[in-house]
Amino acid sequence: MKIPEDLGIEVGDLVRVRKGDIVYEGIAMPKHSYSAPDMLVIKLGSGYNIGVKIDSTASVEVIRRRTEPQKQREISANPVGSGPAIKIIGTGGTIASKVEYETGAVKPAMSPEELLEIIPEASEIASIDVEIIMSILSENMEPGYWERIAEGIYRSMITGYEGIVVTHGTDTMGYTASAIAFAVQDMKIPVVFVGSQRSSDRPSTDAAINFVGALIAASRAPFAESVVAMHADTSDTEIAIHRGTRVRKMHTSRRDAFQSINARPIAKVDPYRRELRIIDSDYRPRGKGEPKLFNGFERKVALIYSYPGIESEIIDMLIDKRYRGIVIAGTGFGHVPEKLIPTLRRAVEEGIPVAITSQTLYGRVNLMIYTTGREMLRAGVIPCEDMLPETAYVKLSWILRRTRELDEVRRLMLTNIAGEISTRHNIDLYRKT
Amino acid sequence: MKIPEDLGIEVGDLVRVRKGDIVYEGIAMPKHSYSAPDMLVIKLGSGYNIGVKIDSTASVEVIRRRTEPQKQREISANPVGSGPAIKIIGTGGTIASKVEYETGAVKPAMSPEELLEIIPEASEIASIDVEIIMSILSENMEPGYWERIAEGIYRSMITGYEGIVVTHGTDTMGYTASAIAFAVQDMKIPVVFVGSQRSSDRPSTDAAINFVGALIAASRAPFAESVVAMHADTSDTEIAIHRGTRVRKMHTSRRDAFQSINARPIAKVDPYRRELRIIDSDYRPRGKGEPKLFNGFERKVALIYSYPGIESEIIDMLIDKRYRGIVIAGTGFGHVPEKLIPTLRRAVEEGIPVAITSQTLYGRVNLMIYTTGREMLRAGVIPCEDMLPETAYVKLSWILRRTRELDEVRRLMLTNIAGEISTRHNIDLYRKT
Repeated sequence: MKIPEDLGIEVGDLVRVRKGDIVYEGIAMPKHSYSAPDMLVIKLGSGYNIGVKIDSTASVEVIRRRTEPQKQREISANPVGSGPAIKIIGTGGTIASKVEYETGAVKPAMSPEELLEIIPEASEIASIDVEIIMSILSENMEPGYWERIAEGIYRSMITGYEGIVVTHGTDTMGYTASAIAFAVQDMKIPVVFVGSQRSSDRPSTDAAINFVGALIAASRAPFAESVVAMHADTSDTEIAIHRGTRVRKMHTSRRDAFQSINARPIAKVDPYRRELRIIDSDYRPRGKGEPKLFNGFERKVALIYSYPGIESEIIDMLIDKRYRGIVIAGTGFGHVPEKLIPTLRRAVEEGIPVAITSQTLYGRVNLMIYTTGREMLRAGVIPCEDMLPETAYVKLSWILRRTRELDEVRRLMLTNIAGEISTRHNIDLYRKT
Repeated sequence: MKIPEDLGIEVGDLVRVRKGDIVYEGIAMPKHSYSAPDMLVIKLGSGYNIGVKIDSTASVEVIRRRTEPQKQREISANPVGSGPAIKIIGTGGTIASKVEYETGAVKPAMSPEELLEIIPEASEIASIDVEIIMSILSENMEPGYWERIAEGIYRSMITGYEGIVVTHGTDTMGYTASAIAFAVQDMKIPVVFVGSQRSSDRPSTDAAINFVGALIAASRAPFAESVVAMHADTSDTEIAIHRGTRVRKMHTSRRDAFQSINARPIAKVDPYRRELRIIDSDYRPRGKGEPKLFNGFERKVALIYSYPGIESEIIDMLIDKRYRGIVIAGTGFGHVPEKLIPTLRRAVEEGIPVAITSQTLYGRVNLMIYTTGREMLRAGVIPCEDMLPETAYVKLSWILRRTRELDEVRRLMLTNIAGEISTRHNIDLYRKT
């Protein structure tokens, strides 16, 4: 059976599902390509999505047919420049910031329009529209803002742009690029996050070159993924394009602070010759499919570091405060101290998924080698392969708005959705002295 | 005034200090080279050390003169091999482990004596004594075990050995090497931590070469610091010697998983030619001074990761549970979301130091550039320069057993004690693609 089609349900219909004593009422949602085939996903009145298994005990009725949404299919009539139609979405950060001369501190203040004024070559590359969604320093980014950015990106994507550039602070740009990779699926065009390590009114700024690199990638790249464009080195000659689910800020101040972990950058851009060179050809190609928005991130998820002396009371507190998911950056292969395992078991028993990553960042979690790991597996933790701790945090927050059934959370955590897990041997992708 | 000498007090005396209404009674402790000159450090009956400022309001009396401790000045009469006298201290880990053939899991089981049997060349390099302090997998390491290891190292150091090798699991070896760098001061000989990524009864083991490298460093190195000896690359040709306060496990499985962060390795060892080559000559030289044990690590210290969506209730919980110190791995230059700052202020007001590091690992914390950072500084946080989050955690735990006065904690956190802070420009020490 194909769900929801074979139930006579269209995406957007208001439906009522009865299963034994329980009744679910909500809007039928599009299926992910990786959803279990017998699952009907509905958005409840609370805003939560839930997956309901449609078996012989379930009955489904349509309460109200969907109302066709008004889709904008035209791009803006007043773009700047010429070339492919590119949407710039402003969220703030140093790339759109100025130094406050009274204090010397940097504040997000400059609009993407002002940025275009100081980067005139941008209008030679693309025909540009600008939309400012927010103006914040990225240390203040929150899952609620990811949702607003995802909404803006999705709207621009179905409007017909050929690429999207998102200006963003560097502190948490990797987290947001990862969030968008999950929230906006079946992308048709690239979404290129770009930031700068020095504010754009400083002579040493990297804003202009990063921005030009991002614009070239957004307008010409053959891939359609959520990526980050930042300096590949300190010499201003190349911009690296990193996959959003694989990138991490690895230095407080260097212009080449962003690095792909357990992966190669997808491409590099020469901002002077305006050339894009593919490095990893295993990407989602541009132009395929119809974009879908699976928006919503659970707020009660914690990312916890493990260390000698960590007390189980920290995890107990999360359980008591009704957190809905916990990601742990364990030591080595993903271990926690053995004395913590009963508490992890308690979390799982109370329906809270516990996802395990490693604080080494590089390499793959493996809980089969040592007895500690095996006991962790018996307690029901989810070993997150070669996923970054930050990406596992974003992904678990996203999954928990799709389903809270532990088996389904586990299945989705271990399914590669946006390049965050590699089944290939990638032990050689390690930065050496 | 020189304290304690000019007060007529010797280290080890039982003293009583009156300051206004408060009376402190305990054993006079040795001064650190970095202690404030007007401070008398005493170990209270509770086991805590406290620094008391000796000013005109203070009166000091000796209650009982110290009893001379019985120092062992002879090394063991039954060493194995010939050459410099080296003490092997066993703590467990993969390097001293065997595969459990029924389950395939690795458990710490093999003694350093057995290790010597399978590495016969060890006895050509040094005259070896073995002491097994514990046998644990290092994910179960705890501050209480650091204290036992520090005690064992200190005892061996004053007994006359020319070097110490500590076998240790790799998961938390960096934390322990860092702990020893603070707990054992004025070292006269090197303390070389060594582990392996594959157990020593497997053909692919790195145990033998790492162990030989560690033994060469322990017996011949011109430096006297707490260091980690592990594969410099995967080709079995060189062992890197990393400073304990600067080293981090950066890969789950590779043999060259250990890397110096924001620093160069101190040396490299060729295990075949048995040669040691100095890379960073800015080390504490061998043979100087008299070792001192400043043992004790505060247990109620937490290491917290900052991320988009972190709730201040996590910090509030630590305050409510009477944690005595908090280390935060912030984003970028060390930021936390602005909404967390009132909670950090509350922690500081309640006498809990909040130390700030960066989750980028590379680079230096700087809270002067952005308004968020400036507000954090106004709330009273301690920006930990280019210190690793793990090292800041170990160091704060150690400081809190010396003093809990916030100003003194801050002064010590920002004083370079064991190579954990660099005042030199080290932006070039960054691993590149």
